[in-house]
Amino acid sequence: MVNCGMTHLRLVAPRDGWPDPQADDLSAGAVDLLDRIEIFDTLEEAIADCHYVLATTARRREITKPVFTARQAAQNVCKDSQNTNNADRRTAFLFGPERTGLINDDIARCSAIINIPLNPDFSSLNLAQAVLLVCYEYAQIRDDEKIMTNQSHFERDNAVALASQKEIDEYILRLFDEIEDGNFFRNPDVRPHMERNLRSFVTRALPTAQEIKTLHGVITALIGRKTKIKNYED
Amino acid sequence: MVNCGMTHLRLVAPRDGWPDPQADDLSAGAVDLLDRIEIFDTLEEAIADCHYVLATTARRREITKPVFTARQAAQNVCKDSQNTNNADRRTAFLFGPERTGLINDDIARCSAIINIPLNPDFSSLNLAQAVLLVCYEYAQIRDDEKIMTNQSHFERDNAVALASQKEIDEYILRLFDEIEDGNFFRNPDVRPHMERNLRSFVTRALPTAQEIKTLHGVITALIGRKTKIKNYED
Repeated sequence: MVNCGMTHLRLVAPRDGWPDPQADDLSAGAVDLLDRIEIFDTLEEAIADCHYVLATTARRREITKPVFTARQAAQNVCKDSQNTNNADRRTAFLFGPERTGLINDDIARCSAIINIPLNPDFSSLNLAQAVLLVCYEYAQIRDDEKIMTNQSHFERDNAVALASQKEIDEYILRLFDEIEDGNFFRNPDVRPHMERNLRSFVTRALPTAQEIKTLHGVITALIGRKTKIKNYED
Repeated sequence: MVNCGMTHLRLVAPRDGWPDPQADDLSAGAVDLLDRIEIFDTLEEAIADCHYVLATTARRREITKPVFTARQAAQNVCKDSQNTNNADRRTAFLFGPERTGLINDDIARCSAIINIPLNPDFSSLNLAQAVLLVCYEYAQIRDDEKIMTNQSHFERDNAVALASQKEIDEYILRLFDEIEDGNFFRNPDVRPHMERNLRSFVTRALPTAQEIKTLHGVITALIGRKTKIKNYED
């Protein structure tokens, strides 16, 4: 929950009572949330002040309710909360106990059902996993604007100094000079094609300025290598 | 994994060996997958036949690679696999050990990084949760006809044969041998760091099989170059 930025948890009739000494250990440090947990005897009381309740269930139900995927549910809830007319609207995601899940009477109290679409031939999602996926989808939607602008090859480069095109070009030209001396272009006609391919490879990697320096060092080392061997041979 | 329709699992040097009697109980019945698990001593061997490797990591890294959200990664991989020209392309999602995560040498072998966008103030995702979210995103997108047409790592690769990790690795190892002979690693302490940086650079560019051949030719040419000059000098 807290991984996904959700901070309000309500428990209905916890099996082992509350507070539960195990909870601190299992919370991975989310003690702020534990301190604020609200306990209710019944589901009815727990959702009394909520306007929209989404029940998460694995099985198909005979109860007729709108059924959403976790993603659709997140979109709906988010769209709803962005509407300033709905500022006071309170939405709850409801999960059943680990083994039994929600009973039909619980589902009947809910506005809609969330069904997480998974492998129809194998489904063994436990409670913690279901909570993670539903909260995750909500977190993704909420940060949607940020996510969309992050969809770039260049996102990584905020903190590193990319090589300038000039630095790349100087490296490429030096490389071509050196490999031409090494008789790389046996057929002069293929040289433009080869140059283009090598340039494409280096440029595509979006090298940093430091990497270009390293690549210059590689050329120097490779040229020097034969000298050393020659010395041994002499 | 199997909840999300993923069925191929490779383990690298499992901490408690393999087979592991605990695995059956923990697998929630996914015994078909357990029977097919492949075990490797090293990451190098585990990804040798893979063409595109996505590393999942929580921390920001100094290594420069494209960074995708789990959703973007799923979109890229799915878009790629729908292209019939890429039928033989093999993609791997890579996860580190529970406590330590992936080390930088592992990341250096990967084509790109998956960073799951979560609460910046609280992140305690464990290994199982990270695997679930990455596989879940892939399961969602696989069934989605409306794959967004935004930037893909593979845009250029519609008809090209990417180099396998094995081909990349052979090239890197040869390059290191040759530049070591050229006295590139004047300070032996920096060698691991330099190796990682060079490996990271080459891998990030997603080289084609043909480009790796060309890069081998470049080494040969650079080594040969000095000979020619020596001949002139002699």
